Amino acid sequence: MKYILPKGFQASGTHCGIKRFKKDLALIYSKTGCKAVGVFTKNKVKAAPLVVSKSILKRGAPIRAIVINSGNANCCTGWYGTRDANRMIGAVCKNMQLKFNNVLVSSTGIIGKRLPIDLIEASTPKLVKLLSEKGLLGVAKAILTTDKKTKISVEKFNVGKKEVIVTGIAKGAGMIEPNMGTMLSFIMTDAKIDKDALKFALREACDKSFNSITIDGDMSTNDTVLLLANGLANNKTIKRGTKEYKAFLKVLKNVAFKLAKNIIEDGEGATKFVTVYVENARTTTDAYKVAKAIANSCLVKTSIHGENPNWGRVASSVGASGVGGIKPNRFEIYLDGVLVFKGGKFTMPSSKRFYKIYKRKNVEITVNLNLGKKDAVMWTCDLSKRYVEINSHYMT
Amino acid sequence: MKYILPKGFQASGTHCGIKRFKKDLALIYSKTGCKAVGVFTKNKVKAAPLVVSKSILKRGAPIRAIVINSGNANCCTGWYGTRDANRMIGAVCKNMQLKFNNVLVSSTGIIGKRLPIDLIEASTPKLVKLLSEKGLLGVAKAILTTDKKTKISVEKFNVGKKEVIVTGIAKGAGMIEPNMGTMLSFIMTDAKIDKDALKFALREACDKSFNSITIDGDMSTNDTVLLLANGLANNKTIKRGTKEYKAFLKVLKNVAFKLAKNIIEDGEGATKFVTVYVENARTTTDAYKVAKAIANSCLVKTSIHGENPNWGRVASSVGASGVGGIKPNRFEIYLDGVLVFKGGKFTMPSSKRFYKIYKRKNVEITVNLNLGKKDAVMWTCDLSKRYVEINSHYMT
Repeated sequence: MKYILPKGFQASGTHCGIKRFKKDLALIYSKTGCKAVGVFTKNKVKAAPLVVSKSILKRGAPIRAIVINSGNANCCTGWYGTRDANRMIGAVCKNMQLKFNNVLVSSTGIIGKRLPIDLIEASTPKLVKLLSEKGLLGVAKAILTTDKKTKISVEKFNVGKKEVIVTGIAKGAGMIEPNMGTMLSFIMTDAKIDKDALKFALREACDKSFNSITIDGDMSTNDTVLLLANGLANNKTIKRGTKEYKAFLKVLKNVAFKLAKNIIEDGEGATKFVTVYVENARTTTDAYKVAKAIANSCLVKTSIHGENPNWGRVASSVGASGVGGIKPNRFEIYLDGVLVFKGGKFTMPSSKRFYKIYKRKNVEITVNLNLGKKDAVMWTCDLSKRYVEINSHYMT
Repeated sequence: MKYILPKGFQASGTHCGIKRFKKDLALIYSKTGCKAVGVFTKNKVKAAPLVVSKSILKRGAPIRAIVINSGNANCCTGWYGTRDANRMIGAVCKNMQLKFNNVLVSSTGIIGKRLPIDLIEASTPKLVKLLSEKGLLGVAKAILTTDKKTKISVEKFNVGKKEVIVTGIAKGAGMIEPNMGTMLSFIMTDAKIDKDALKFALREACDKSFNSITIDGDMSTNDTVLLLANGLANNKTIKRGTKEYKAFLKVLKNVAFKLAKNIIEDGEGATKFVTVYVENARTTTDAYKVAKAIANSCLVKTSIHGENPNWGRVASSVGASGVGGIKPNRFEIYLDGVLVFKGGKFTMPSSKRFYKIYKRKNVEITVNLNLGKKDAVMWTCDLSKRYVEINSHYMT
């Protein structure tokens, strides 16, 4: 079940020469038209392919394919950017007898260098020829940049007697922050579903996955999640608010969460997987603010890296979050389940328990604000010397 | 002129045993009562000595002394925190025949450990005995934590025929961010000046110095700037709006800026001094937001560390700043004076000029937003492996 595409989908990945050796060009294809929805970066500096894909989605024609390159973000490339994104689509249209409005485009990699569009055009016929129902691993590889591992998640569920498959792939390892940090994800399903339901499901799934992870607090120019549904499972159409919708949403959330988790685990230089829970805030926004302040604190992240249970830095981040009503005497901090801070001071747990904190690969920080009833969860990784090493030299 | 205290001031620093070997207890004393004003951290988790000093300042009695320890922040220490801060003041009062409301207290170091107040009390007589007009270097040493260097700045100017001296010391190397990140600074002057003028001058000087620096985006629980004026220069009283006030403000700004610069240069693991200029924003707040987004970006800071002129990361930070109206086609980026980004794309300067960028110790990033008329400047350092090393193990 690891590498299964939903019915009617094919995929391929190849090397066109943007990168020296690795795969750098990918194609996702559906033999029938898909309903398609997307979630995009909030960065005001947006890459050209993102702007082009957004406008194609707006036109609402059925989507048949997504063409993706890695190694070059086609961002900050001026007038050429849009032209080259259009040419990427054009090459696919020409080789597959599709129309411009049926194809989406996406790019990730270095900012500010012109796309070697000739290489992409030259390799598109091969890319099309490689399309296969077994092409999932190839496409998952071809979208990677600094990632060490491919990120694939597949889930199945039933609507009546019809089996529905949801398959997602993702890339991303640095420059990740809530609101779509360079993170790309493409999710395919053969579910038959209302466009409206599809849109809401993607939004909700992203909020509890891709939008709740942070590696270094930087928000990228290219972040994109695209969800395609071709309806070939031939189930009873899924509508919002039904129990089938709930089942679909659950599966979509699982796929998105697993991909988001893979991104954190593959964070540049990451050695720990960190979950930050904030409980009993006045509002959900407040809860996220506090969680983000902790998850983005360089001091908290370096202390986790050093397996040094420095709760003072967590307390300081809570105070610095800018959230109203926070009182040191009121909030509690648990590190890996051990209560370390309460009533404004260190609780002095037994040293046996204290020195177990942060030793495992999975680290948990829980802050109980005791101010209201709203919660939030965020996921992040530690900050290591390796992160600095990678990012001192990689020319994004 | 390097180590001069203003008229009537004395200082001392000693070792009381909070740290293993280095000086950790300091005293600043004025033989006559001082007008005193302060600027404090905005972190909601505030250390006890800060709360105590704030309330003493509010009472408005003349200030005669400041007692400071390093190595322990006396923060998140619950009920004991206030008691111990009060006892630090009490020990000074007892040994110097001062009243409680005449003495301020300040602490910096590890969060969450009780202050070894007995050690401090036992060493206070020695500290008082060591007081001297030549004690500036001693006090500057005794307030340090992870700092590598003492931070002292002295300036003189004349009001009529009277010479006025302004002497500042500071500590801080990590956990620095705008709004008083663990940063302490004590500034003394013998100027005769209105309390109101003193307050406004400190606020303005802090905004263009301590509040405009960032090392790692973390805001500390103990940050404090205190300014004492004993009036012993015997000049014509300085009032707001006069040319004497302007002269005083200029000197105070110089002192504060020099100390802030020293803090950046001493940033944990820092190898570069980075100035971020943002020009032609719609509002000053917008300009600071953009400057802060750049100055706090881990990706920008690691690229500077690697001497890799990655303007794409700067462009991405501008877009991610959340400031309204930003258009990639409109803003320009200069790195070390070289225009690299204009009209939404890389300007392709000559490779000779391009490869000089980021090579010097002083790095300049200028962003012209072309949206309005407001500017901002922030100062920061690069992000190195050494930063991660220091903060993985130091128990703040």
